[in-house]
Amino acid sequence: MSKLKNDPLIIKKANIKDVPLILSLIRELAEYEKLLHDVIVTEKELKKYLFGTKKYAEVLIAYFENAPVGMALFFHNYSTFVGKPGIYLEDLYVKPEYRGKGIGKGLLIELIKIANKRNCGRVEWAVLDWNQSAIDFYKKLGAENMESWRIFRLTSDKISKIANTL
Amino acid sequence: MSKLKNDPLIIKKANIKDVPLILSLIRELAEYEKLLHDVIVTEKELKKYLFGTKKYAEVLIAYFENAPVGMALFFHNYSTFVGKPGIYLEDLYVKPEYRGKGIGKGLLIELIKIANKRNCGRVEWAVLDWNQSAIDFYKKLGAENMESWRIFRLTSDKISKIANTL
Repeated sequence: MSKLKNDPLIIKKANIKDVPLILSLIRELAEYEKLLHDVIVTEKELKKYLFGTKKYAEVLIAYFENAPVGMALFFHNYSTFVGKPGIYLEDLYVKPEYRGKGIGKGLLIELIKIANKRNCGRVEWAVLDWNQSAIDFYKKLGAENMESWRIFRLTSDKISKIANTL
Repeated sequence: MSKLKNDPLIIKKANIKDVPLILSLIRELAEYEKLLHDVIVTEKELKKYLFGTKKYAEVLIAYFENAPVGMALFFHNYSTFVGKPGIYLEDLYVKPEYRGKGIGKGLLIELIKIANKRNCGRVEWAVLDWNQSAIDFYKKLGAENMESWRIFRLTSDKISKIANTL
C-alpha cells in the first residue's frame, strides 16, 4: 500500500495474525453504532471466513504512528445493470481518539484505488441515517445517497424456519 | 432443485447457455424499476463474471410450464457482527404476466434453502420504497425492514477520478 515519506498514516492489507485486532475493532464499531448486542462473531469464524480456503471478505488496517487505529472490511458484489463486479464496504471504523486526522478518508481512498485497479463499476456501503457526520463526509467525496432503496433482512432463525417448513 | 409431481413451477441453477435469457430478464426488471437507462451490461460481461474463472454471482431460473418466467441473481456477502457469510439477493424478477402464481415466492424460498444449506447468517436484499406490493410480500415472509440504513454509492466515473487525483 502507498506511504508518503514521514506520513504518520500507513494502510496495509490484514493477514491472519491480525484477527484479534480485527475482532476488537468490530466490537468497538458495534458499540459506536449502539449494536453491540448483535455481535456474536468469534476469532475462529474470522480466521475461517476471512483467511480460509474461500475468502468472503478482505480487510485494510490503518496504522497511525505505527499504532493500529482503524480498518475497512469489504467484499465484492455484482451489479447486473453495470454488468461488472463492485466493492461493498461492510465496515469502516476509526477509533474515536484518532478521528479528524484523515484516517477514514485515507482508508476509503485506498479502497477506491483498489476498486479502480480491479475495474469495478461501483463502490457501495450503508450508513445509519442518524450518522450525519458520516453522511456529510460521504457526500463531500461525491457519493450518491440511494435514498429510495430499503434493505430487507432475514435472520438465521427465520432462514432455518422457512427452509424447514416451506 | 426441487420439483413436486405435476408442479408447473421448476427452479434450476442457470448455466452459461442461459446468458441471453438472463440479459433479457435483467432488462425487463430494469424497465419495471424505471431504471432501463442505467443498464449497460452485455452478454460478454455476464459470461465472464457469472460463468468465468471467478464467479461473482449465481442465478436461479424459474420455469412455469416449461417456459422461463423469472430469475433470482445472488452472491455472498459477509456480516462482521454475525461472523458468517450471508446471501445478498441482487435481482428477483418474475415476468408481469406470470405474477400471482407463487413464482417469486418459490424463487425466494429456494434461495433461503440454499442459505440454510450453506450455513448463512443472513439473507438480504434491497427494494424501492414505492414498491409496496413487494414490501408487503417480504414482511409477510418475516423479513425485517432495515429502515434506518441508507445506501451510498460511488459510480465508476467518480472512482477513477478519485483514484487518479487523491
